[in-house]
Amino acid sequence: MTISSVGEFTLIDRLAAVLKDTGPTGLLVGIGDDAAAWRPTPNTVTVATTDALVEGVHFDLSTTGWADLGWKALAENVSDVAAMGCWPRYALVALALPDRLSVRDLEDLYRGLQACATAFGCQAVGGDVAASHYVTIAVTLIGESLPATGADDQPPLLRRSAARAGDVVATTGPLGASAAGLRLLREAAGTEADDAAALVSAHLRPMPRVTAGVVLVQAGVRCAIDVSDGLVADLGHICEQSGVDAEIRADRVPLHPAARARFPDTALDMALGGGEDYELVCTGSAEALARASRELAARGEPPLVTIGRILPQRGAAPRVSVLGKDGDLVRPERAGYQHFTHDVRSGWPKQ
Amino acid sequence: MTISSVGEFTLIDRLAAVLKDTGPTGLLVGIGDDAAAWRPTPNTVTVATTDALVEGVHFDLSTTGWADLGWKALAENVSDVAAMGCWPRYALVALALPDRLSVRDLEDLYRGLQACATAFGCQAVGGDVAASHYVTIAVTLIGESLPATGADDQPPLLRRSAARAGDVVATTGPLGASAAGLRLLREAAGTEADDAAALVSAHLRPMPRVTAGVVLVQAGVRCAIDVSDGLVADLGHICEQSGVDAEIRADRVPLHPAARARFPDTALDMALGGGEDYELVCTGSAEALARASRELAARGEPPLVTIGRILPQRGAAPRVSVLGKDGDLVRPERAGYQHFTHDVRSGWPKQ
Repeated sequence: MTISSVGEFTLIDRLAAVLKDTGPTGLLVGIGDDAAAWRPTPNTVTVATTDALVEGVHFDLSTTGWADLGWKALAENVSDVAAMGCWPRYALVALALPDRLSVRDLEDLYRGLQACATAFGCQAVGGDVAASHYVTIAVTLIGESLPATGADDQPPLLRRSAARAGDVVATTGPLGASAAGLRLLREAAGTEADDAAALVSAHLRPMPRVTAGVVLVQAGVRCAIDVSDGLVADLGHICEQSGVDAEIRADRVPLHPAARARFPDTALDMALGGGEDYELVCTGSAEALARASRELAARGEPPLVTIGRILPQRGAAPRVSVLGKDGDLVRPERAGYQHFTHDVRSGWPKQ
Repeated sequence: MTISSVGEFTLIDRLAAVLKDTGPTGLLVGIGDDAAAWRPTPNTVTVATTDALVEGVHFDLSTTGWADLGWKALAENVSDVAAMGCWPRYALVALALPDRLSVRDLEDLYRGLQACATAFGCQAVGGDVAASHYVTIAVTLIGESLPATGADDQPPLLRRSAARAGDVVATTGPLGASAAGLRLLREAAGTEADDAAALVSAHLRPMPRVTAGVVLVQAGVRCAIDVSDGLVADLGHICEQSGVDAEIRADRVPLHPAARARFPDTALDMALGGGEDYELVCTGSAEALARASRELAARGEPPLVTIGRILPQRGAAPRVSVLGKDGDLVRPERAGYQHFTHDVRSGWPKQ
């Protein structure tokens, strides 16, 4: 059985099943959340996440600049740490590189990475470089929780497994911009206009919601994920880990205005299934989400947008439903990106 | 200027120069040691290291088994943590994989990784899988120092920069076995005999010296590196970071007995330049090394072997000299492995 016949998520389950808990104590979160988490001291939690970007799969050197690539390689890890409600701290960078590359290009890669580190208050502190056939960039980021407060002495985290029936579902901002920007880049459309540039920038230089993640956790929210695979797919991860269903109202999903203007017919699909927006999707009580919205506004950040609700699981498997204005079921065209189900060269889904 | 024209170590220097110290406080060790290190709390130090293994460069799927590959991918990171005098704790695994691979092979990879984690008391807690053209395995390992003791309140670490003129140079065990094992594998020689099997095992399933690293640090030793590139090259890293010269006595370098028996003419070169032995090379006062040797013996581990001494830097650049029995200079054939100076397909040095 090849990995393309089982897909990314089954593969992860199979590999996780091989691992045993034989290690040090203090592990709080293992495989399956946005990051792993453990307690190095009673009062704090360390989180760690890793992501690999592969030439020809995640990026194309003919259309992606090296500095953008450096930004994005770190930013997607920053987003995972934000989705745990933690501050990003220390990054390690493992590079596999063909020796035809120029040193100057790689310095540009590091300039983009450094710009992202500066923007989000973290730092690249080590790494590895190895010869290879294609460029692969694996970044690992270590973050830190807020300190424990309150009676339960638990450092607070945002978990995928913490959604409860009755929770409200919200997002920290508009969706679909990254997918629209990628479409513009692939069509080699003019990207000079302000609205096109905003979409392309959303794809190439995403801005993870670190402050929003910390505000959520401070407001008492305990469940979130970042939108990397696509809203429906990522909310689906929350449902699987929490054993609940979710219902989204399509008319409430905030579409990026430039995506809606450029792609009026497909902007909703881009928002539901496009991915790489790196906004957070969270669930919690209406009161906790309102507290978080007020605090976000006080910090000059956009308020949360309510898009749906969490329900008890009704079927054999947890499910995300997208409802239209009149309550009918909307079927999103793409269910979110999954590795090994797409062609490595073109990036498009296999038939 | 391509990266093959500058080589691995210059490339690392150029990339490190792009990074700025803009991040969180508490960083103790940045790029250039076996691992990065920071203080999450006043009393402890966290260390982190990452290494990428690339198909066709670091391993060949036609001769390397998946379980061996999983062991080695973690073991070389365990060795970096050992070389800091720390305990390995949590590992993250980023895999880039062609979709033709079988799930069973990847489960074997994880079985090997789990066996190594069990052997050294650490745990794989997260990761990432992505589609790719070739197999790349990037493992990040996070470790923990011994707690701070003594008047200076510094958690103790083994550093590359801590060698001082007058120090004795020692190794934790015999060298050359890994290079000899690789030679046997490449020559497709019979590897069933006990001595050949020992060499092959040293190459495929190296045993990092975690206990030895901790014993060194407890005995007051503060300088070490693991032998990954080759004894002369790795001791050279210590000399560069410490601003000293080193002198090794070739006749004192402990050769693995099976390597000496199988390859009498080249065993010394294998020990000096072969690499991947994952023993530790340390420097310190004769008293501290003697204390460490006694403690190692008490724990049933082999004692340290003294192989040379640290001298003040005499030339423009720090230098490692290898002396024969009569005090003449021995020139090791290979100066240690450096990426981008070897052909990606064959693994052999470029001309």
